Amino acid sequence: MVKRISVIENILNANDRLAGENRALLDASGVYSLNLMASPGAGKTSLIEHTITRLSALFNLAVIDGDLATSLDADRAAAAGAVAIQINTGGECHLDAAMLSQALVQIDLDTIDLLIVENVGNLICPSSFKLGTHKDILIASIPEGDDKPYKYPTMYRGVDVLILNKIDLLPYVEFDIDYFHQGVKQLNPDIELFTTSCRTQEGLDTWIEWINTSIKLRKRSILAET
Amino acid sequence: MVKRISVIENILNANDRLAGENRALLDASGVYSLNLMASPGAGKTSLIEHTITRLSALFNLAVIDGDLATSLDADRAAAAGAVAIQINTGGECHLDAAMLSQALVQIDLDTIDLLIVENVGNLICPSSFKLGTHKDILIASIPEGDDKPYKYPTMYRGVDVLILNKIDLLPYVEFDIDYFHQGVKQLNPDIELFTTSCRTQEGLDTWIEWINTSIKLRKRSILAET
Repeated sequence: MVKRISVIENILNANDRLAGENRALLDASGVYSLNLMASPGAGKTSLIEHTITRLSALFNLAVIDGDLATSLDADRAAAAGAVAIQINTGGECHLDAAMLSQALVQIDLDTIDLLIVENVGNLICPSSFKLGTHKDILIASIPEGDDKPYKYPTMYRGVDVLILNKIDLLPYVEFDIDYFHQGVKQLNPDIELFTTSCRTQEGLDTWIEWINTSIKLRKRSILAET
Repeated sequence: MVKRISVIENILNANDRLAGENRALLDASGVYSLNLMASPGAGKTSLIEHTITRLSALFNLAVIDGDLATSLDADRAAAAGAVAIQINTGGECHLDAAMLSQALVQIDLDTIDLLIVENVGNLICPSSFKLGTHKDILIASIPEGDDKPYKYPTMYRGVDVLILNKIDLLPYVEFDIDYFHQGVKQLNPDIELFTTSCRTQEGLDTWIEWINTSIKLRKRSILAET
């Protein structure tokens, strides 16, 4: 048992080291970066499409998509106007820092302002593998149910930002917003929270404004450092 | 790389051996058993509740619930009238045959007709670990989107039965049923398919009738063998 734990620890330590290298690479090129995680079908790709459409006049965007198979998500990101790279994990249930590192060398980072990484659809495994991005973001969705913070605490505890998506479906499913928020706040009191619907575009203005401000603050702090 | 593959193969071989032992134990007691897998929030627990409510007058039911944390799901199964055992995996992203084996010894199997195992909410990892149950069942749900068979082929390829749940949400989300079915049939031409809504109870009669018939056929075949 001790041996098994030490093997896992070694893997995670190696991952953290590579994540640090990814962060250094992104910082050296002034790229602000987000790691989007969620259950399958929570709306990651749709949110990325809307984000590209609304920000592409202001910034140069790149998207790195992780999936078991297909390039469906990267195709959608490319069609919306971003530089898009697909990682097919071939069965692996999460992205890790090494996979991101291999994708980053395929992008001319000096030309990019914002990188969005779309992780594999999985509410468990991606939370154990830092990628080196500036913010870890979880997208939850109304039809998944209000008990998910309680049942998947590792993911809810580990992220910086939570987007509660598909809010337009609230009239059609049972979902107690107070119970959901209570679970989230118990695990992660400082989390930043957004509520969105990609279908009706409710809440997207606030989300886009947050990214816009984050990119500008990041650029300002890089200028101040140099 | 060769070493890594052989370690994984050994783990999976050991799991398959234990799964075989679980099956023998279930067969010896005449228990018919189902392994329910799905993304978080696809409706596994709700479907189990309805199944218990509708079948508990006819059969003795047991439910084994796998979750990272909490006993929320087992509590719901017990409240609906089943013998319920909660497995907290403590971070593990799937059930395996060893975990099921440890839960089975807590149940008086000779008194049980139907065992439903509710796997951890995850569309990837549970598909690699057979438990020894008679049928592997996937619950998909309308709000997850119609592209899931294409993006999660391992899960869709490996199951015997597919339940497309939350069909009542079809008017409110984009979901092309033909595209979804086409993806499923490419991967798994012999799959048995059900369409349900736990909210409106649409399709539940057909699902319950299928379980009912399956249990009876199983009992008849055991009688014929003895």
